Parts: sequence; structure tokens; C-alpha cells
Amino acid sequence: MTAVANEKELLTPAELESRLRAIGPEYYHHRHPFHMLMHEGKLTRGQLQAWALNRYYYQSIIPMKDAIILSRSTDPEFRRAWRKRIIDHDGDGVGPGGIEKWIQLAQATGLDRERVTSEREVLPGVRYAVNAYLDLVSQRTFLEAVASSLTELFSRDLIVLRVDRLRRHYPWLTHGLAYFDARLTQAPEDARFALAFVVVHARTRAEQELAIGALRTKCDILWAQLDAIYFAYVEPGWPAPGAFRPAAEGGAV
Amino acid sequence: MTAVANEKELLTPAELESRLRAIGPEYYHHRHPFHMLMHEGKLTRGQLQAWALNRYYYQSIIPMKDAIILSRSTDPEFRRAWRKRIIDHDGDGVGPGGIEKWIQLAQATGLDRERVTSEREVLPGVRYAVNAYLDLVSQRTFLEAVASSLTELFSRDLIVLRVDRLRRHYPWLTHGLAYFDARLTQAPEDARFALAFVVVHARTRAEQELAIGALRTKCDILWAQLDAIYFAYVEPGWPAPGAFRPAAEGGAV
Repeated sequence: MTAVANEKELLTPAELESRLRAIGPEYYHHRHPFHMLMHEGKLTRGQLQAWALNRYYYQSIIPMKDAIILSRSTDPEFRRAWRKRIIDHDGDGVGPGGIEKWIQLAQATGLDRERVTSEREVLPGVRYAVNAYLDLVSQRTFLEAVASSLTELFSRDLIVLRVDRLRRHYPWLTHGLAYFDARLTQAPEDARFALAFVVVHARTRAEQELAIGALRTKCDILWAQLDAIYFAYVEPGWPAPGAFRPAAEGGAV
Repeated sequence: MTAVANEKELLTPAELESRLRAIGPEYYHHRHPFHMLMHEGKLTRGQLQAWALNRYYYQSIIPMKDAIILSRSTDPEFRRAWRKRIIDHDGDGVGPGGIEKWIQLAQATGLDRERVTSEREVLPGVRYAVNAYLDLVSQRTFLEAVASSLTELFSRDLIVLRVDRLRRHYPWLTHGLAYFDARLTQAPEDARFALAFVVVHARTRAEQELAIGALRTKCDILWAQLDAIYFAYVEPGWPAPGAFRPAAEGGAV
């Protein structure tokens, strides 16, 4: 069979890029019903709080994830390029970094900083999905660790849409959106570098398939976080014992 | 404040045991609505398949979990006692072990062996929760690794109830229940040994609290698996892309 025979052949750089880009429309979390509700203005303030508080846990491990990747690279040039990501999220000590800006977003939803940064009320399901990202970059090949960052290929369109819809439907959140402004330029830059690395360093068809698989796995990790949030805060509506519960409120804000 | 002052005091063995046992009624997954539906006979055959297939992933890592604990023990006497668990699950090469019996349960729901053992269709949320158990026993203290097994203190009552209700509501499953028969004696034996170990080796109040926390964390791990299964197969009803989907069927079996 042709399909099986072809499975052994090395993809051209353009074919590999096309396979990687094709993952977005099918698996990226822009299609998740929680995001749909957000973009339609159908989430309550409490649900937005739950999203900001839980997603903070993801934001908080990103520089750790990138430091693991740094720690696995033997190439100073690669490390110089990759360390930018850590600075983007942790800040340069003068302006706020991405994590601080995410806290500002959470505060704009009405949450206290300490309640967010303590991470005490994070849903177990979100915690496990995020930790799976640390496992991936620690335990799979270096190529897969880099390839897993390629969800940034898909993030710009989602951010543009999200910022527009958040401004429209939740105007009280507008002063908390600085995180997304920065990501609009950071994410595509980072994705370009990582894509070029993956295309050059996936030297066999097996390695190419590993890279594609790592990007799929990363999409699962993002999707599963929203599943846990939807399950706990939209429907059926039961946060695990001990997890964040929004204060009672009257319908959508 | 008395409560704060008391937090520094060592618990007596009886107090520690009582704190550990008190976790069950509040956090153990016998209270999870998926189990409620099972015990009321309200799950369809497809939902029972989804449970058996996903929970197989948990069953399949138990001997790996116990081997990690073995690998961290420097005490031959401890290791001799603990290795029983691996034999219980993997079998002695003559009779079937727990994993094989779980496969028989899954087959009794109507699934092919290969579909189950390939683990291809396991929900991401179940996968992450189960992997969090491996992380716990690898990365936390040895005391916490042992204490996390203490959910077996609570399992006997759940198994007795479950077997009774499965026989009553799903008589076509009756020939697949051998797994639970074995666990009725294995789990309490194992729990007695682990409880005695924890009570003796938690030598400070801080260590006692770590042991209690590890048992809470393990309850989260069990609970989160059922959240993922409920979310995907009961309500709202969307398995992640690529995860197991039951064949169409007409209502409860």
C-alpha cells in the first residue's frame, strides 16, 4: 500500500511544516467550548475568575518548562535564543513579565493576588495536565521538547479574537489585558525559531513523526485544562473537594 | 490560639490513624457521582466500557508504582513485604494477576483485549491523573510514597458495594468480576502493613502532616480520573479528540 510505503519516507521541510500546521485546526484549544462561551460573552464573572486562577498555574510553570529545555541544550546559540522566553515571562526586573501581567488579569476579574499565586485552589485536573507538560519536556527527546512549544504557531489568531471579544463582552476586564498584547509579538517570534529548529533537526521520518506527536500531545495538555475548567465551573459544575469555588452571583456579568 | 499551638505537637499513633481514616469519608472516590450512577444501575454498557478501558490505564501502572517504591527502600524486610503487591497485580506466571483480571472485566463489557491494552484511547485527563501518581511516588519523600497507598483503607467497603450492585444491575458482567474478589483480601492486608509503617516512621508533626497530605493527594488522583470519565461519557459528553468513543446504543443496558 502506498500510504504504508510513504510512511518511511522523509518529509520535505515544507511537508513537515504543513503537517505541523495542520494540527492546529483539529486539536488546538481555540475550538474548545469554554473558549466559545468566552468569545460569545456567555461566561459569568465567577467563571472568568476560575479560568484566570486555574490558568495561572499554567503560566507559572512556563519559565520552569523553558529552563528545563535550556538545561538540556548543549548549544550556546540555542540557549541564547531560548532564554528570551524566560525573560518574557519572569520580566527583566524593570517592567512586569508575563506572569505578573497574568496576575493583573486575574485581579481584574476580582481575585486577590495571594489567592491566585498561592495556587491552593487549582483544580487537580488542571494541575495534572500542566505537570504533564513538565514531564514531556523533561522526559521525551530534546526535539520533542522543542516541538511541543509549537502551539505558538496557532496562538496569535486566538489571542486577537479573544482580546476583541473580552473588550466587547467584559469591558470591566479591559485594563487587565496587557498580557495578551505582549504575546501578540512574542509568540510568533518564538514559534518561528522553534519551527526552524524542528525542521532542521528532525533528520529521520521517525523523528519527524515524534515532533508531530509532541505537538499533538501539547494540544491535549491545553485542551484537558479547559475540560477540567468546563467540568467544574460550567457543566455539570462540581469543582473537586478543596478547589476554587466562585462566590454566589446572579447570572452572566 | 490553641489550634495553632497544637499544630506543632506530635500526634499519638491513634490520633494519626484517626486523621488518616477521616480522609476517606470526605475525599475518597466512593462518593463520586460516576460511582453513584454505577451503583444505581444507571450507566449504559458504553459508559461501563469507557470506565473499564480508562481505568485499565490506572491498573497497568500499579506494579510500576510499586516497583518505584521498592527501588527507594533500603530495607530488605520492607521490600519483601512490598513486593507481594507486584505479584498480586502481575501474577505469578500460573494464575492470572490483577491486571489480567481487569482485562477480563473489560472484555466482559464487550471490549477487545487489544483495544484495552494498547491504551491508545485513554482520555488525556485520566492519563495525567494516573501519571501524577507515578510522580508522587518518585518525587515526594519515601514516607509520602507509602502513605499514598492508604486509600486501600477505604477500598473494601466500596468493592463490596460495587460487586453487589454490578451483579444486580448488570448481570451480564458477573463473569468478569474476579478482580474485585481478590482485592477484597489483598487491599486490607496491604493497608494494614502500610498504615503500621506510616505510624512508626512519621516521627515529627511535619512528617505526620506530609503523610496525611499524601493520602489527600492520592484521593484527588482517584477523583480526577472519574471527573474526566464523567465529563467525557456522561455529561456534557465530549471525549477529547482521539479518545475512546462508545458505539451508538439505545439507552441503559
